[in-house]
Amino acid sequence: MPELRKDPITGTWVIISSERKQRPKYYLSAFEQDLSTPATCPFCPGNEAMTPREIAAHRPGGGPADGPGWEWRVFPNKYPALRVEGELSESAEGFFNRMNGIGTHEVIVETPDHGKSLAALEPGKLQAVFSVFRERIIDLQRDSRFRYVMIFKNKGAAAGATIAHSHSQLVALPVIPIRVQEELLGAENYFRLKERCLFCDIINYEGEANRRLLCENDCFTIMAPYAPRFPFEFVLYPKKHTPAFESSSDHELAALAELLKIFLERIDKTLNNPDYNLILHNSPFTGNSREYYHWHFEFAPILTRVAGFEWGSGFYINPVSPEESVRALKK
Amino acid sequence: MPELRKDPITGTWVIISSERKQRPKYYLSAFEQDLSTPATCPFCPGNEAMTPREIAAHRPGGGPADGPGWEWRVFPNKYPALRVEGELSESAEGFFNRMNGIGTHEVIVETPDHGKSLAALEPGKLQAVFSVFRERIIDLQRDSRFRYVMIFKNKGAAAGATIAHSHSQLVALPVIPIRVQEELLGAENYFRLKERCLFCDIINYEGEANRRLLCENDCFTIMAPYAPRFPFEFVLYPKKHTPAFESSSDHELAALAELLKIFLERIDKTLNNPDYNLILHNSPFTGNSREYYHWHFEFAPILTRVAGFEWGSGFYINPVSPEESVRALKK
Repeated sequence: MPELRKDPITGTWVIISSERKQRPKYYLSAFEQDLSTPATCPFCPGNEAMTPREIAAHRPGGGPADGPGWEWRVFPNKYPALRVEGELSESAEGFFNRMNGIGTHEVIVETPDHGKSLAALEPGKLQAVFSVFRERIIDLQRDSRFRYVMIFKNKGAAAGATIAHSHSQLVALPVIPIRVQEELLGAENYFRLKERCLFCDIINYEGEANRRLLCENDCFTIMAPYAPRFPFEFVLYPKKHTPAFESSSDHELAALAELLKIFLERIDKTLNNPDYNLILHNSPFTGNSREYYHWHFEFAPILTRVAGFEWGSGFYINPVSPEESVRALKK
Repeated sequence: MPELRKDPITGTWVIISSERKQRPKYYLSAFEQDLSTPATCPFCPGNEAMTPREIAAHRPGGGPADGPGWEWRVFPNKYPALRVEGELSESAEGFFNRMNGIGTHEVIVETPDHGKSLAALEPGKLQAVFSVFRERIIDLQRDSRFRYVMIFKNKGAAAGATIAHSHSQLVALPVIPIRVQEELLGAENYFRLKERCLFCDIINYEGEANRRLLCENDCFTIMAPYAPRFPFEFVLYPKKHTPAFESSSDHELAALAELLKIFLERIDKTLNNPDYNLILHNSPFTGNSREYYHWHFEFAPILTRVAGFEWGSGFYINPVSPEESVRALKK
């Protein structure tokens, strides 16, 4: 049974999950590309039996569950970091805290086409992927054991993907990840002082200063953060104050798909199809963060060597200023 | 000129340093081993002209600076993340904060022997390396512009090293890295509540529970943390309450060398010479943290694929429990 453990010094929660060890290629110390073909790829149509039973899928022409004919498909991760069964229970060892590892870990396959990237999806199909995110969050919110849903995409081996076929992952958690907690704290402090949303103020400032703004449409804006940790790190915000991703309308998801597609195509062209991480930072299910939090996507391509001390120190050295990143992409 | 920028949401400081881009191989998205030979390696004796002028070195048989004959050698990083010249000045852009990138970035070459690992150094030579750390910290403390010295070792390409020849790096900073700040905050809160050092209490608890203790001697102890982020993550503590590394006596540094050598040899044997990061977490120069902080080394081998979302979320999934790590190394 996986376990959630809290570091007594920093307060960081960690999932200890020995199930994950059985995952193929987990113990590689170098990055190796997944060389599966549609015949051997577990995420390809016809190979549905290679994955756990599906949670949801869209088959425009009909057809039974766990068969082909789908445009997107959601199923539990075969090597889940957390288990969905059981009651949440906390316990202690000495002065340490732990929780049993209750949660879900799902895979969202975004296209039946083995070689197609997220950026290459037609806008309508990309919008459908975001609708799946929305539906899964709304569904998991009903489960009172969970406080947070984290959705992320690892594209390519250097970004942590073991399977090349385009997919995202979802983890529902009984705790809030520390980086989101840090954002919540910063945003709450700002709100107390100014009675305004910090993210809204940043969006307005950057919109006027126009130094780190990359592109925008009616509903969304993409900019480089003022203090990015990585070269070509970007953040996508809804322009309107919106704490929760799942409250997005169909119209908004269409605008999101439109802008993100333009952005990813530009990234692929300028940086030669880099591996990347795309992470949804959303409001927790509970608490009063809805006043001051503002959902967003964080994007970072994997371009530089990982200086591991950055994990240990939280101190990032970035050789590319955000203004340079924006200039390079605007060319 | 490099720049320090503060993220307005999380409070994280980042170094934006375009000088680092000129570093060879910076833009690799895959890990490539450094295949230099002693003839081409800039850290080998005889090639001193390939590095900036040395800050310190030990030549048992004498000899001029920047020539061969040394056992260890310290010089500025050729591609420094920070610049040592100038006054510290803060400025603002809109509601963002920045500082000019004043600091030092030094390289400590630990042995003249191109192929020798830190673990393979004779205990006396390993002790000498720790004495260099101590002397450099004491020297840099005199500079009132700095608040923190970070010393770290990236071993191997997967850990972020671009040069294979065994070395550590030192960065002196006008700010405290966020992970150290988190530790300081946790330790301060605990101290206020209990009037005891949190680290001392953990060391005592683990010493009695003996579930995550790996090895110890009179002065030091090495254990797996209760909530490790990585498989085979370990932490080394002085047993006596010691906030600052630089207050260690020669006797203590000898004991440190002895225990760390045993530990690294065991790691190399069990995990087949993994790439790793070793990071010194030390007390800041200023503030009253000396009551409640306790210096330590953090160690993590690079064994698993980097799931990049862990950077974005601060949420770590670890497939190996700390109890398993200890058992595997004790075999």
